[in-house]
Amino acid sequence: MTTATTTPATAASRVRSLEISDIRFPTSRELDGSDAMNPDPDYSAAYVRMTCDDESEGDGFVFTIGRGNEVVVAALQALAPLLEGRAVGTPHDLAEASRALLHDSQLRWLGPEKGVMHMAVGAVVNALWDRQSRVAGVPLWEYLSFLSPEEIVDQVDFRYLSDALSHEQALDILRAAEPGREQRAASLREQGYPAYTTSPGWLGYSDEKMVRLAEQAVAEGFTQIKLKVGADLEDDVRRLKLAREVVGPDIRIAIDANQRWDVDDAVNAVQRLSPWDPYWIEEPTSPDDVLAHAAIRRQVGPVKVATGEHGQNRVIFKQLLQAGAIDILQMDAARVAGVNENLAIILLAARFGVPLCPHAGGVGLCELVQHLSMFDYVAVSGSMEDRVVEYVDHLHEHFEDPAVVRGGRYAAPTAAGFSARMHAESRERFAFPGGAAWATT
Amino acid sequence: MTTATTTPATAASRVRSLEISDIRFPTSRELDGSDAMNPDPDYSAAYVRMTCDDESEGDGFVFTIGRGNEVVVAALQALAPLLEGRAVGTPHDLAEASRALLHDSQLRWLGPEKGVMHMAVGAVVNALWDRQSRVAGVPLWEYLSFLSPEEIVDQVDFRYLSDALSHEQALDILRAAEPGREQRAASLREQGYPAYTTSPGWLGYSDEKMVRLAEQAVAEGFTQIKLKVGADLEDDVRRLKLAREVVGPDIRIAIDANQRWDVDDAVNAVQRLSPWDPYWIEEPTSPDDVLAHAAIRRQVGPVKVATGEHGQNRVIFKQLLQAGAIDILQMDAARVAGVNENLAIILLAARFGVPLCPHAGGVGLCELVQHLSMFDYVAVSGSMEDRVVEYVDHLHEHFEDPAVVRGGRYAAPTAAGFSARMHAESRERFAFPGGAAWATT
Repeated sequence: MTTATTTPATAASRVRSLEISDIRFPTSRELDGSDAMNPDPDYSAAYVRMTCDDESEGDGFVFTIGRGNEVVVAALQALAPLLEGRAVGTPHDLAEASRALLHDSQLRWLGPEKGVMHMAVGAVVNALWDRQSRVAGVPLWEYLSFLSPEEIVDQVDFRYLSDALSHEQALDILRAAEPGREQRAASLREQGYPAYTTSPGWLGYSDEKMVRLAEQAVAEGFTQIKLKVGADLEDDVRRLKLAREVVGPDIRIAIDANQRWDVDDAVNAVQRLSPWDPYWIEEPTSPDDVLAHAAIRRQVGPVKVATGEHGQNRVIFKQLLQAGAIDILQMDAARVAGVNENLAIILLAARFGVPLCPHAGGVGLCELVQHLSMFDYVAVSGSMEDRVVEYVDHLHEHFEDPAVVRGGRYAAPTAAGFSARMHAESRERFAFPGGAAWATT
Repeated sequence: MTTATTTPATAASRVRSLEISDIRFPTSRELDGSDAMNPDPDYSAAYVRMTCDDESEGDGFVFTIGRGNEVVVAALQALAPLLEGRAVGTPHDLAEASRALLHDSQLRWLGPEKGVMHMAVGAVVNALWDRQSRVAGVPLWEYLSFLSPEEIVDQVDFRYLSDALSHEQALDILRAAEPGREQRAASLREQGYPAYTTSPGWLGYSDEKMVRLAEQAVAEGFTQIKLKVGADLEDDVRRLKLAREVVGPDIRIAIDANQRWDVDDAVNAVQRLSPWDPYWIEEPTSPDDVLAHAAIRRQVGPVKVATGEHGQNRVIFKQLLQAGAIDILQMDAARVAGVNENLAIILLAARFGVPLCPHAGGVGLCELVQHLSMFDYVAVSGSMEDRVVEYVDHLHEHFEDPAVVRGGRYAAPTAAGFSARMHAESRERFAFPGGAAWATT
């Protein structure tokens, strides 16, 4: 490549070791992050630091909400022997590593490709990409955006996808987006990427706090906010009405039920809330239920149906798209098997023309997923229309390269890597159960 | 109840402690259990022994195929605090315990309701039922069969099911089967329940061994056998042809691809194998892919489509039934959340009129799942027509109350409990990594 943003080849090396830690933040004390399904989360990370023979490092993590973080730690430990000694250097090395982690037959039995084991694979794969872009000296979004279509497609496991997306179709999508990548990367660096905020809407907040934060969000430049719903319908009506009054008709208000409803409950609730113009209904029901999402979508239009933060793997996203079950695809950076599986999901979304509005928040999810949406803009969909990345203003201070949102937009990261690295002092202070933050409780 | 098989009330007590162990059998040395996806399994169990204040005990386990068994052990350890001190005694206590395990919001995040965490819940729930029927002095199939319809329905989590099965519809199914339960239980004790065998069909076996074991199976009275397929189509054709020649036209031969194919591969392969009259194609593709199973089924009839051993929870089974994606539902006793979720799955199958042909084999899966099919016969579907429970003749010697198959039929268990208890000497010898069986490798 001959342009200003060519990606340097990264030095060949081998993975030497994985350092795995259990990190938990006592967020339940303030009800940050409370919703209808998760009343008292302690935002946590099962964290992995990979070190290679050339002393290069890559970080990754699984986000959890407290208890059970140690189970993911055990899963990461089970993966370590598969990675140690493995070659890293070319993008193809990463494709091979991803396959080796996913196709270990004995570990695969524990999913397959879902739950604790799959999330752990995601953390390790993300650490590989953090190292890859870090060594290349560019942010991950840029590193991915200027790989060749062939290199991108090589990362994708097409097993179970061929009835919706073939290798050739994926290449066609990427080739069609090749022209204009430089200009889009430049505009991204200048203008950033649209964000929306969930900070006003946690279920545990008082009406007063919600209203104050909603006003503040609009003042800061956000054009979309989100409210949690699903515990009590009359409360939901009161809160949505209040929020609509305070933000006016031009701000989009998404609502999020966090899986609380069956089909009829969802349809009834959304119809009851419709006078206050919710933009999308998020996670109306089980994240596994493709047919229920399709049934809900048929009955709640023009309110859009969104899901994905708990989407277990590419097979569920494929079906949600095939069935016409969603208007909005909410990928998560740390639930599926990392960057590689998210590349498959991004290509599926492009194939079906469904916009990505990723889930974020938690611990470090904003930091990670911004890169994937920016890659989508530069090298896949080529569009920001109706696309927003969630933003929650918690816990960013623990990261070396925190997400920066200004005027309602994510600033394009400029530091090398996947923004995945947590400060050493945070990892120490919030180590569970031995860290200082936990010793005082 | 006033009949001869009334279930005594079980004494009220509380769970005192859970003893959790990692048990592995070095089965990969003989290629027992080898298939297209799992070439070298070491059949294993993450095992839990629950002890109550009254010294009563219940056992349960997750079946895995080796590496990663320790991750399930970690998940069981995470569940222990939720169970210790909890009341056990009435069936309603078990319904409450099941809900408490599934609805812990922090642990739920790790699925939700799938993968390692969910399988661990299943082991603990199964241990509760083992203890329940053991204290009652009857085998589990009988204990369940003579609960009232209300008691059964109380066990079911109807969340996400209401678009396919309501509380009232489930009651109707059970009430319709109440007449004749005594007679069916008596006929079960006398005649047993139909089995089929997978022992001839492992992919790692030579043609000679496969032929010899197929002949032997027919001689023993089996009317259905199963062959593994999916690694190489020409091998599959040769093996199926050989097997058909040796068993003749009247023995059903099921084929099992263990998830190896995409939709078109599956259709092509089944059509190619059709001249030798396969009865069902099992796990043609991803266990998550409802729409793919439906597409395959539309194209391979009259060959039946079967799946379920990796079905992650009731929501996937509901959709497989709603979409008309399967002819045969292959529930597994130890992948979903135990007896309670399997009661939901059995009721869903009855509602859609689809026969249960459970997955078994592994470690102790025959021992467990026979009880669920027998309950289905006595108290739900009332039928054995086109219903068979898988049988594999491995590892039964490690159980105190091993499954007994004679003349191609499972003998109805008569000992109290869920047949879940492994001999103490087996648990010791095959403990991983410290047991004598591993010390010598």
